[in-house]
Amino acid sequence: MTRSPSPADDDVRMRGFTHRSTVEDARAWVDQHSSCLPEMELSLSEAAGRVLGQEIISEVNVPDFARSMMDGYAVRAEDTSGASPYNPLALEIHGEILPGQAPTTPVHTGTTVRIMTGAPLPEGADAVIPAEKVQETERDDQIQVLADVSPGKHVGQPGEDISVGEVVLPARRRLRPQDIGVLSSIGIGRLPVISTPRVRIVVTGDELLPAGTRPRDYQITDANSPMLSAMIQRDGGEVIFEGIVADQPDAIENALKEPADVILVSGGSSVGLEDHAPRILAELGTLSIHGIAIRPSSPTGMGLIGETPVFLLPGNPVSCLCAYDFFAGRAIRRLAGLSSDFPYPRCRMPLSRKLVSAIGRVDYARVAIHEGQVEPLAISGASILSSTTRASGFVIIDQDSEGMPAGTEVEVFLYDI
Amino acid sequence: MTRSPSPADDDVRMRGFTHRSTVEDARAWVDQHSSCLPEMELSLSEAAGRVLGQEIISEVNVPDFARSMMDGYAVRAEDTSGASPYNPLALEIHGEILPGQAPTTPVHTGTTVRIMTGAPLPEGADAVIPAEKVQETERDDQIQVLADVSPGKHVGQPGEDISVGEVVLPARRRLRPQDIGVLSSIGIGRLPVISTPRVRIVVTGDELLPAGTRPRDYQITDANSPMLSAMIQRDGGEVIFEGIVADQPDAIENALKEPADVILVSGGSSVGLEDHAPRILAELGTLSIHGIAIRPSSPTGMGLIGETPVFLLPGNPVSCLCAYDFFAGRAIRRLAGLSSDFPYPRCRMPLSRKLVSAIGRVDYARVAIHEGQVEPLAISGASILSSTTRASGFVIIDQDSEGMPAGTEVEVFLYDI
Repeated sequence: MTRSPSPADDDVRMRGFTHRSTVEDARAWVDQHSSCLPEMELSLSEAAGRVLGQEIISEVNVPDFARSMMDGYAVRAEDTSGASPYNPLALEIHGEILPGQAPTTPVHTGTTVRIMTGAPLPEGADAVIPAEKVQETERDDQIQVLADVSPGKHVGQPGEDISVGEVVLPARRRLRPQDIGVLSSIGIGRLPVISTPRVRIVVTGDELLPAGTRPRDYQITDANSPMLSAMIQRDGGEVIFEGIVADQPDAIENALKEPADVILVSGGSSVGLEDHAPRILAELGTLSIHGIAIRPSSPTGMGLIGETPVFLLPGNPVSCLCAYDFFAGRAIRRLAGLSSDFPYPRCRMPLSRKLVSAIGRVDYARVAIHEGQVEPLAISGASILSSTTRASGFVIIDQDSEGMPAGTEVEVFLYDI
Repeated sequence: MTRSPSPADDDVRMRGFTHRSTVEDARAWVDQHSSCLPEMELSLSEAAGRVLGQEIISEVNVPDFARSMMDGYAVRAEDTSGASPYNPLALEIHGEILPGQAPTTPVHTGTTVRIMTGAPLPEGADAVIPAEKVQETERDDQIQVLADVSPGKHVGQPGEDISVGEVVLPARRRLRPQDIGVLSSIGIGRLPVISTPRVRIVVTGDELLPAGTRPRDYQITDANSPMLSAMIQRDGGEVIFEGIVADQPDAIENALKEPADVILVSGGSSVGLEDHAPRILAELGTLSIHGIAIRPSSPTGMGLIGETPVFLLPGNPVSCLCAYDFFAGRAIRRLAGLSSDFPYPRCRMPLSRKLVSAIGRVDYARVAIHEGQVEPLAISGASILSSTTRASGFVIIDQDSEGMPAGTEVEVFLYDI
C-alpha cells in the first residue's frame, strides 16, 4: 500500500490481477490434479451413498433354487392337464414344505406337496397350483385340482433376479438403497468403496470471531468454515478444521504444511499486502492459477503443495461459496469418485426480466423462482451471504455473453434438492 | 390353505384382497397420521441438512459497523471533490486501521486514515479511496488524492447483509450450507431443529438369512432391512433394527410393542395363513388399510398402535421398495419436517415404446433412460430387485390409465440425485 503506483501496479490494483484465467482453464487444472482416491473397505450398513471401488460380480444365483411364488401345491404340470371345476383331478398330498426348509419328499405322478410362498420346489415338481384352484376332499391327504397349470407357472427360477457371474453393479457407482439391498442378497457384507477425501479448512482473518460467537467490537463471525464444512460433507469429504488461523505468514505456512488430501484457505487470497496465502503457496509449492474471470470469485487461486491441491478462496462469503462450488468442490467430488458436476438439480425456465452481464467474465447470478419464472436477485454483492439464502438457486452467465433479455429460457441450478 | 374355498375366499385369494384402497386414499391416511415431530436443539455444526424448528430472527446487524471494502484511505468524500491526476489534493495521514481493530483517530477535513479491507470506518469518514487512486508524497504522513469519490463509496454499510429484527430463515427450512454460514454470521451456535424420527424395522421370514450372509440351503439373504435402513436415513430417520424376527405370532407381537415413531414390518403382510402381521396389528391397534391398488405393492397394509403409524410392507423387495417410497417413507419424511414428495429429482422425456398398464391400479414402472428416451424395463417382477438397480428411475402410471403409446412425454423420477 505504500509502494508508488507504477502502471503495472495500478493495473493489478484496479483490476485485482494482471491476468485472470478463464473458468474453463481453472476447471481443466482442477481435473488434471484431482483423480479418484484409492479404495477402502466398509461394511454394507455404512456404504449407502458411497462410491463403489470395483465392479461387483455375483458368485451366487438369486434365488439359488426354484421357489414357489404362491401358497399352494407343488405339482407336475402334466398331471393337471384338462383339470377344471367340471373335471376335477385327484392328487395325493405327500407332505408340506415351508420357506427356508429343504424339500424332502419328491413329487411323482399323482402326488403333490403343500408349499408356501418362498419355499423350494421339491424334486419332480415343475409348477405350483395356487390354493384357490384346488378343492379339498373328505380325505386329509387328497386334493381335487380344478384348473390346469403350465410348466414353470408360479415358480421363481434359479437366478431369475441375479445369476452367477453377472456384473451386479459397475465400479464408480454411487450406491442407492436398492443397491445395498442387492449386495446383501448376494451375500456381500463388506465392500470396497472410494476413500473419503480429508479436506483441511484454513480460515484466516484477524477480524473474525469463531463460529457460534455473537459478533461484537468491530469483528464479524466466521461464516465460511461452517458453510464450507457443510459443503465438504455433502460432497463426500471429511472436514479437518482446527480453528481460525492468525493473519500471520508463519501461522498460515504452518497450517498449509499439515496433512490433507485437499486444502482450502479462506481469506487473504487476493493481491493486497495482507494477502499472504498466494505468496506462501508459491513458496511451499506452486501457485498455478491466481485470479479467475468470474464474478464474484475473481480473487481465487489454486496450486499444489506436493500432490495436494490447495485452493485459495476469497473471504467474502458469496465469493467463497461460488469459488468452492466451481473449483474446490469439484476437486473434492472427483477425489471422492463422484461426478464433477455441480451437486444441484437443474431446471429450465424463462427470465422474468433481463439479466445483464459483461463479456470477458462468467457471472454467478443468484435467482429466485416465482410463478414459473426466473427472477434475478443479485450478481454483485460478494459479502451479502443472505442473497444465497433468499435465492432458489443460481444461473451461470457465460463469459461470452452480455446477458439475456426477459423471456429467455435459462438453466437454473437449484440450491435445494 | 386347508379351508375350502368359498366364493368370497376365492376372491380374496385370487385377487389377494376383497377390497383394495386407492393410492390416493392410502396417502391421505398417511398424511392424517404423520405430522412434524417436536423440536430438539443441535449445534450449528450438526445442523446442515436438518429442518429448522422455528424461524430465526437476527438480533444483530451484519456487519454491525461501516467497513471498508478495499485497501485504501478513509476520507470525507467532500475533501476529494475535483481531485484528478492533473489536480491532486493533499491529505494528511493520521494513522492506520486494521480489520478487527477499533478506530481510534477520527478523520477531519484535510486528514485521512489508512484502512484495510474489512476494517471499521473511523468517525468523520464517509468513503474510502482505493490505494491505487492516490499518490504518495515525499512526506510519509501525506498522500495526494488523484480521483474523487462520492459518499458511501467502497463502504459496506451496517446491516447491509442482515439487519436486526430481520427474519433470516423461515421455520421448516431444510438447512443449506449457506444457511449454516448465515446462522454463524449472526452468532447462532445452537438452534432448534425437528427431531429425528426413530424408525423400527421388523423383518420376518423363516427363509431369511441376516444381511451380509452368503445365501445357502434353500434360504435367501435379507435384502430389505439394509435397503430400508438406507432409505430411512436418506429421509431423515434413525434406524432401529434388532435382527430378523421369527415367523411366530408372539415374536412379531413383541416386536410391534417396542417403542418407535414409525414401525415398518417387512414380510408376512398379505392374506395367507403365514401372514401374521395384519391380524396382530389389528389386535394391538387398528389395521386401517390392507391391500392397495398398486403394482407391485398391493399386499401393503397400514394402521396405528397408539399414535404410532405401522406399515406392513411386502417381503418381495421391489414391492417393499415401492411401498416404502409411496407410503412409509412419506410418513417418515413428514415426521422429519421434510416435503411429502418423493425425494427424487424429476425429468420429462418421451417414451421409446409403449407402456401398458391396467385401469384400476397404479403401476410403478422401472425405466431406463437411453439417448433422451424413456425405455420401460419392468412393471411386474416384484421379486426382481435387480430391475431397480438396472433402472434409471421410475414412471408412475395413474390408475385411470391403460398406459401410454411410444413418444408420449412422461415424468421420470430419477433414482440418482
